[in-house]
Amino acid sequence: MTIETVSTCKSHGGTQGVYTHASAVTGTPMTFSVFVPDHAPGAKLPVLWYLSGLTCTHANVTEKGEFRAACAEHGIIFVAPDTSPRGDDVPDDEGYDFGKGAGFYVDATQEPWAANFRMRSYIEQELPEILAANFPADMERQGITGHSMGGHGALTISLRNPGRFRSTSAFSPIVSPLNCPWGEKALTGYIGADRAKWREYDAVALIEDGARLPDLLVDQGTTDNFLEGQLKTHLLDHVCRNVDMRAAIRMQEGYDHSYYFISTFMAEHVAWHAERLKA
Amino acid sequence: MTIETVSTCKSHGGTQGVYTHASAVTGTPMTFSVFVPDHAPGAKLPVLWYLSGLTCTHANVTEKGEFRAACAEHGIIFVAPDTSPRGDDVPDDEGYDFGKGAGFYVDATQEPWAANFRMRSYIEQELPEILAANFPADMERQGITGHSMGGHGALTISLRNPGRFRSTSAFSPIVSPLNCPWGEKALTGYIGADRAKWREYDAVALIEDGARLPDLLVDQGTTDNFLEGQLKTHLLDHVCRNVDMRAAIRMQEGYDHSYYFISTFMAEHVAWHAERLKA
Repeated sequence: MTIETVSTCKSHGGTQGVYTHASAVTGTPMTFSVFVPDHAPGAKLPVLWYLSGLTCTHANVTEKGEFRAACAEHGIIFVAPDTSPRGDDVPDDEGYDFGKGAGFYVDATQEPWAANFRMRSYIEQELPEILAANFPADMERQGITGHSMGGHGALTISLRNPGRFRSTSAFSPIVSPLNCPWGEKALTGYIGADRAKWREYDAVALIEDGARLPDLLVDQGTTDNFLEGQLKTHLLDHVCRNVDMRAAIRMQEGYDHSYYFISTFMAEHVAWHAERLKA
Repeated sequence: MTIETVSTCKSHGGTQGVYTHASAVTGTPMTFSVFVPDHAPGAKLPVLWYLSGLTCTHANVTEKGEFRAACAEHGIIFVAPDTSPRGDDVPDDEGYDFGKGAGFYVDATQEPWAANFRMRSYIEQELPEILAANFPADMERQGITGHSMGGHGALTISLRNPGRFRSTSAFSPIVSPLNCPWGEKALTGYIGADRAKWREYDAVALIEDGARLPDLLVDQGTTDNFLEGQLKTHLLDHVCRNVDMRAAIRMQEGYDHSYYFISTFMAEHVAWHAERLKA
């Protein structure tokens, strides 16, 4: 449970830190960032998890996400984990969409991935314990969001853990790994060819199979290069309508898949989570 | 005067672009970024120049500066040039603080720098013409700011061009190259050993020699590693008091030299410029 501080910087009145620890789950060192707003001594603050997309580390959103002003205003801790185990001993793939930087928030069952690629358990179990033990985090008030592969992570982790997150949102999420090339490559590799086992890692399938969220906010750019072939937002829209699950799925005209898009709507997402986390 | 578009992304309702052109002044291709907020057809918008610090390109502030929300709100174009000429044929130095990434906003007179390292003329003459010709920029309403070496650039360019900029601010500027190791190395190299010739590239000396700004905003972190040895904010404070030049020089407790500091106060700087540019 001990963590090591890589760096801390004062920003927007609070502290932006980067930390590392030896993960029992992945068997590797893991790095993550946490922004803690200025707060009264002894106070515990709500937590917003942000899961990143393919190729990212904690650093992308930490540098480009433009979340700190809003988190400082609303008094919310912002946590950004890495997207996979790292290190010379960790297996990898030549593609950007599998292996390092592409953990897909699953617990791999296939070799050579099973030993290290356990991002589901890392995000669901180990990192929350570390957060609770080392930061002024009110674990009764957690929200979760993410981008692309991390949007998939946020949706599926929240759907599988009813009641844990008071608020769930996503930026341009992969909504159904069962129905896109990124998902097919990753889940075949990590979980194996039996597609029935993929359903717990597929937001649309989880909802079809009965999982529900009380509410959902999704922003998706209309000129996102990955919309048609990979993200397929309409599948999420359809299943939410079919089962009558409340979801604000906003198609944002002219926006792409980049942090220029994410940062545009970040403050709105933080405010949306704050409303639910502080209710 | 033709420019090439490297990329454009919609962000905060406007367009964040990156552009390149063949510079007649530096004899090299030069890259810069421009954010143009959403605006009425035919409208011309005020311009805020941002000059970057040592080691930076246009990209650092473009990605980490958190200026777009404020520029969109106030309807201000944000321009971020590179900090030096680039390319295999351009001379360089082994240090991070001289040569590429360290143009210091001077016109070099010494060899081998004189042919390419002409960032003063590039920022004062060539890039404004390109901006006026290619963007909806109201060149009667310009403000300028910058960070560290770029804060030095903003102050000295504004002081040497009275009336051109309606507003001038800086983040942790080098206030007197005559009195710090970064300045001594760069100006000896670019301008030569005659320190009298350095005075036009020294904000404190320019003010001592009679140049004035109507107003000035400076933010400086108190735990900035470069404060004591390089930046020496107190020299600017002293000269402004001595000549009775209005200047808000704010020492910001606990902040460092990074973009985590800059981004914290960026929205306030943009609002401060907006007030003067739109008056």
